[in-house]
Amino acid sequence: MKSGSPALLALAAALAVSGMALAQSQEAGPRHVPAKVLAVPTDVSPEMQEIIARPLNPAWNDQWKTGEEARRYADKQAAAVVKTIPPLLQRMRVKMEASTMDGVRVHVITPDEVPGQNRNRVLVHVHGGCYVLFPGESGTTEAIMMAGLGHFKVIAVDYRMPPEAYFPAALDDAMTVYKAVIKNANPKNVGIFGTSAGGALTLEMVLKAKQDGLPMPGAISSGTPMSDVTKTGDSFYANEKVDNVLVSPNGFCHAATLIYAHGHDLQDPLLSPVYGDMHGFPPTILITGTRDLLLSNTVRVHRKLRELGIDAALNVFEAQSHAQYTSDDRVPETKEAFGEITEFFNAHLGK
Amino acid sequence: MKSGSPALLALAAALAVSGMALAQSQEAGPRHVPAKVLAVPTDVSPEMQEIIARPLNPAWNDQWKTGEEARRYADKQAAAVVKTIPPLLQRMRVKMEASTMDGVRVHVITPDEVPGQNRNRVLVHVHGGCYVLFPGESGTTEAIMMAGLGHFKVIAVDYRMPPEAYFPAALDDAMTVYKAVIKNANPKNVGIFGTSAGGALTLEMVLKAKQDGLPMPGAISSGTPMSDVTKTGDSFYANEKVDNVLVSPNGFCHAATLIYAHGHDLQDPLLSPVYGDMHGFPPTILITGTRDLLLSNTVRVHRKLRELGIDAALNVFEAQSHAQYTSDDRVPETKEAFGEITEFFNAHLGK
Repeated sequence: MKSGSPALLALAAALAVSGMALAQSQEAGPRHVPAKVLAVPTDVSPEMQEIIARPLNPAWNDQWKTGEEARRYADKQAAAVVKTIPPLLQRMRVKMEASTMDGVRVHVITPDEVPGQNRNRVLVHVHGGCYVLFPGESGTTEAIMMAGLGHFKVIAVDYRMPPEAYFPAALDDAMTVYKAVIKNANPKNVGIFGTSAGGALTLEMVLKAKQDGLPMPGAISSGTPMSDVTKTGDSFYANEKVDNVLVSPNGFCHAATLIYAHGHDLQDPLLSPVYGDMHGFPPTILITGTRDLLLSNTVRVHRKLRELGIDAALNVFEAQSHAQYTSDDRVPETKEAFGEITEFFNAHLGK
Repeated sequence: MKSGSPALLALAAALAVSGMALAQSQEAGPRHVPAKVLAVPTDVSPEMQEIIARPLNPAWNDQWKTGEEARRYADKQAAAVVKTIPPLLQRMRVKMEASTMDGVRVHVITPDEVPGQNRNRVLVHVHGGCYVLFPGESGTTEAIMMAGLGHFKVIAVDYRMPPEAYFPAALDDAMTVYKAVIKNANPKNVGIFGTSAGGALTLEMVLKAKQDGLPMPGAISSGTPMSDVTKTGDSFYANEKVDNVLVSPNGFCHAATLIYAHGHDLQDPLLSPVYGDMHGFPPTILITGTRDLLLSNTVRVHRKLRELGIDAALNVFEAQSHAQYTSDDRVPETKEAFGEITEFFNAHLGK
């Protein structure tokens, strides 16, 4: 269907008197969307159907007020997540060790087998969790999957979070690690990746590297980035209570971001990177899902990069809510997403 | 936020007794989405805001039963659209003439200035309109924009539609034109493009060319394709009454498709190309919007192509409903979309 050209507006009047069925809402302006029930889609893998069928995240409306409060939740969650890590390491055939780089806590993840082309390559990982979740080892699952499925050496940054520290501590720690890494590696062989807050931190790191006159990494992967924490972005609303992970623009993730921001301007590109100057960005791959609360804020970053002529590849997965492609390495769509990122890094690192 | 890993499921039980706020829906399965009001987004151009603010398409629930009935609507709409064409030709600085190729009606659109690299290139256009709308000159607006904004020679196929003819007449006519074009041009210099039914026809043409052992075109652009007319695709439902153009999977466009299909199996890849074998497809650019009823059916084609390793570029525009990037050449997002397609054709034709 060709959409409403100027001529179609003229038509609307004609149709209104032609006895054809009229829409409920005839006025221009906000869209009134009736309540609906969305079936579990059948055009994704059975494993992904299970993930999509999950009820709304029970914590979605937690309104944490302090770093301490958020951290209590984070610690409880982390205790459950870390139990899943030993079998994950085994399935992925990687080794992980805790360490520090210039005082910043990291986990170094090394695949049992590193192909020749990846011997000089390193990926820096920044985890998600709305800047307050997934401390310590619990923040490494995505990094482990990337190392295992992509056969890369990965350094996962265990950046400081509230109440230990506030904005810009996460970014500062990530930059410390990036600087340490590019002392020993050609920046063109270094990639940065992360999802959600980690997707935003990935973009923020590149903005900060530009500000500080540091060399650009060879390529980056920004998964469904929290690129705009000012609640701007249409899918915040269109996908409210459609996304079963973040659920609402007014939920726990916004509360968490306010704690991290600690009064800092939310429109600062180092918190809302969609407002940053992206000239000179390296090749960037972006991933989101059609039910993702951050669908808009992923595609807005893509459009901004493309307007500047930057090589930017957008991938949108059917019916997935926020970051569900990172849920479980055994799900076909997870393998597919990490396969895309791997192919992108392989095509662009070292160029 | 990292999504529901296996650990998070275990957590759900813990949280349920921890006094934290619980979601309304705690059961796995279909998602219950409350009624909502979507504001007109502010993160798009003022011109696009006007298009997004339009009320639901007044014809959305027309349930045409026959080709004659659909054609009466199409003729009325066409009469309004053709009035907009002379000023469009002028703004785009192109000339258009009606002609035939091996008996098929076409419009040949030639820019006043064709850059050297485009002298040997030709684009074949297949218009949208759910296989029943935009007959004759009224089907050329997208072709004119492509010729003007991209500086390409375009041959727009005025394929037969109900009640003149039914499936597979549209595809047959398009193939007749493609075969005539590649008699006189290197197929690598030929692109095919279209939106909606035209986006589907673009994919169907490549599937048919493969079946018939014809050479592949150099590149194709498939705008928000009707790639699955079996009502499969999550955004058919998630974006129901969010999309102000198509509005509903049970609206006029489905009625129109049934008329064209004329009893033919809707799952045939020549009607639902997402089910086709896409091995060997040429580089493909895809365009959709976050409010598009066919968002899912655009991203599903993208994923399918990517799984096969085909160079496929996905572009998703913020808050746009179905095909709104083709609404008006004076809208910044329209120029941006046609700019993407132009760049893609320039990068891939002749390679």
